[in-house]
Amino acid sequence: MKHLLDTDSLSDDEILEIFEEAKKFLNGKQSKVLQDKLIVTLFFENSTRTRSSFEVAAKRLGAKIVHLDIAKSSTKKGETLKDTAKNLAIMGPDAIIVRHKHSGTPELLSKMIDTPILNAGDGAHAHPTQALLDLFTIMQYFDDVRGKKIAIVGDIKNSRVANSNIKLLSRFGLEVILVAPPHFLPFTKLRTAYYLSEVINEVDIIMSLRTQTERHDKPIYASLKDYANDYCITKELLGDRDIILLHPGPVHRNIDIDDAMMGDKRCKVLEQVKNGVAVRMAVLQKCVLG
Amino acid sequence: MKHLLDTDSLSDDEILEIFEEAKKFLNGKQSKVLQDKLIVTLFFENSTRTRSSFEVAAKRLGAKIVHLDIAKSSTKKGETLKDTAKNLAIMGPDAIIVRHKHSGTPELLSKMIDTPILNAGDGAHAHPTQALLDLFTIMQYFDDVRGKKIAIVGDIKNSRVANSNIKLLSRFGLEVILVAPPHFLPFTKLRTAYYLSEVINEVDIIMSLRTQTERHDKPIYASLKDYANDYCITKELLGDRDIILLHPGPVHRNIDIDDAMMGDKRCKVLEQVKNGVAVRMAVLQKCVLG
Amino acid sequence: MKHLLDTDSLSDDEILEIFEEAKKFLNGKQSKVLQDKLIVTLFFENSTRTRSSFEVAAKRLGAKIVHLDIAKSSTKKGETLKDTAKNLAIMGPDAIIVRHKHSGTPELLSKMIDTPILNAGDGAHAHPTQALLDLFTIMQYFDDVRGKKIAIVGDIKNSRVANSNIKLLSRFGLEVILVAPPHFLPFTKLRTAYYLSEVINEVDIIMSLRTQTERHDKPIYASLKDYANDYCITKELLGDRDIILLHPGPVHRNIDIDDAMMGDKRCKVLEQVKNGVAVRMAVLQKCVLG
Repeated sequence: MKHLLDTDSLSDDEILEIFEEAKKFLNGKQSKVLQDKLIVTLFFENSTRTRSSFEVAAKRLGAKIVHLDIAKSSTKKGETLKDTAKNLAIMGPDAIIVRHKHSGTPELLSKMIDTPILNAGDGAHAHPTQALLDLFTIMQYFDDVRGKKIAIVGDIKNSRVANSNIKLLSRFGLEVILVAPPHFLPFTKLRTAYYLSEVINEVDIIMSLRTQTERHDKPIYASLKDYANDYCITKELLGDRDIILLHPGPVHRNIDIDDAMMGDKRCKVLEQVKNGVAVRMAVLQKCVLG
Repeated sequence: MKHLLDTDSLSDDEILEIFEEAKKFLNGKQSKVLQDKLIVTLFFENSTRTRSSFEVAAKRLGAKIVHLDIAKSSTKKGETLKDTAKNLAIMGPDAIIVRHKHSGTPELLSKMIDTPILNAGDGAHAHPTQALLDLFTIMQYFDDVRGKKIAIVGDIKNSRVANSNIKLLSRFGLEVILVAPPHFLPFTKLRTAYYLSEVINEVDIIMSLRTQTERHDKPIYASLKDYANDYCITKELLGDRDIILLHPGPVHRNIDIDDAMMGDKRCKVLEQVKNGVAVRMAVLQKCVLG
Repeated sequence: MKHLLDTDSLSDDEILEIFEEAKKFLNGKQSKVLQDKLIVTLFFENSTRTRSSFEVAAKRLGAKIVHLDIAKSSTKKGETLKDTAKNLAIMGPDAIIVRHKHSGTPELLSKMIDTPILNAGDGAHAHPTQALLDLFTIMQYFDDVRGKKIAIVGDIKNSRVANSNIKLLSRFGLEVILVAPPHFLPFTKLRTAYYLSEVINEVDIIMSLRTQTERHDKPIYASLKDYANDYCITKELLGDRDIILLHPGPVHRNIDIDDAMMGDKRCKVLEQVKNGVAVRMAVLQKCVLG
């Protein structure tokens, strides 16, 4: 593994090894293993959350970061993606963390240059570190994840988080059920449901997705409130069932998840954020040092 | 003291202790005491000046900085302040430096999370490190500040700088006189004057405030020039009186202070900036290391 | 040499000394010689490329960087350039890297403050580190550069890159020929030509300039395509001549240089970027440490 384009870039063993390292970092392991390394963030889309998680991870390991804010940059001056990439790579960074609104951009970059590329989200395609931290979080709560059932709820079709999780969680033996209105469902062989109530008695985990209102040109629901009526994860809905609740953040309160569930112990959103830094430390260590 | 929300967070002894440290830094003391510490700046308002002063201070002590530019961030995606704060805190920074246009935001944050919060300015409420550096600067010029008279001049009502200074300087025994047109005066028990000429023969210190044109929805003066006619600190006005002149910056030349006074030895604006870095180093050291 | 305002700031010996250092950095020399140094970037114009090259150079040497994004800053609040400079200098940075759209700004700053100023491009006046890296790149390909002929092609009149190169390359004994339509030519004693075909059989080096469409208020060519018809550097035009091709980047493909030449071994654009980091490391080292 050199690049992290999708979770497919990693074997099962490599993933478990990353998780072992992440656990050590969570338990307070200090390491300056990336001292003297230079990591570039190349974000064609804004993402305070993912970018700062990567930045905290890199800096905890001693790396230096150079941010390229592409919205203001050379790509606006008629430079091609390939030229931007080659110009960047020749400066000798030890890794490039990329986010782009078009699926496949990180893979394209990885074919143009030798520098390790870490995908921080590309279009509706993949968000591998998110899926890794989600699986890591699930594994903290179940001794054996094989056979566990997870409902992914929301705008699955347009979600790179859902896409990466479907692949990764299925591979580790979880049964993934997609819960969404028809226009939010991808073509799939997976089991699907229109309402969470249809499967709530079976599932061990619920992953609520962000209502990506900014990704749709036209409103699909009459209003967010209409969407929330059907898909908001409420404490009323969960009752006292033994289910853990995940969400990639930022949470639309009372649209994605209601206030009562946000304050409930079963909601693991903050654990995900915490685990995200640790998993990204382990991923950066692996990508940069090989 | 864990958070620095207002100067009230600090006892007199703690303030004097901070000043002792700041003096050492001014005298060239090198210290990497915050090596391996991670400090987040969370600015909901732009502030090149204050942010860069904190950044220089933190980096001189060896800390790493992660900037969260909230204008582009999750809060725009429907996340609440509380969720932003909790998401940030769980990543484990050693301190968070906050600026917000609403009074009380840093205090709110300090109740939500355990991370030390440093207030870098909240609405018209407080700007504690500014008041500390102002008192520190005054103390450089007077062996005993008790009984010294300071005129604070300008839009006092809307100024967090004035607000923090009124509290801090009064506490250290200075007599504060507020000089402003009626609509710029707060309700106060302090002595007030409409024109500086009324008190110029008594005062030891003048603190000119920035004309905060961007904070008023409607113009209050017909023009800045009309304001300047009455409130610009001119060399003509000061004559050869033994008075030191302060201003939090950036100075509107010939509106707040005229060119002649800006070039005069009695003007301590640059000393304030220099002292600001040293005081913030001492404050960061205290907040982060306890 | 304290400031780097133009290449005139440097003697021939100093330039060759900088190149010797740059070569060592290219050959893998590691040095933390700027550890504990603080360098400020003060960019009044956006420039991802130059700024990130300086940032990578500074961080490789162990320096800390504070970026001042002036577009959002105090200058918008009515502060003069002089006050901004003095406020910055008093915070004690070890160097300030400046870009400004007005010619002469770095020189002005150098007269106002004591901090070393590095010019990262000012108006149409100068871009000294670009000229240095260009000469350095040329020297990699010729044992003796004296008497070598270089054609500079494009909007020379408005180009600080051309301006700095004309002075520096002439000084090191190269013959500079300016190739441009009349309205892109400055008043000059240098040899000029309207079309590259007139001099192509004589030259050893071609330097293509960026079509600075954003610097002209009115379009000068009917279209970029019309310009490209006359001035794009094509493989067809160069044939198999032994000529090296330079460009300061970012390249407008098929306007400045065609795809075939961009992929040709004679095109040294990426070498320039690579050399740029090494040359800037050497320049920073010299300016900061004296």
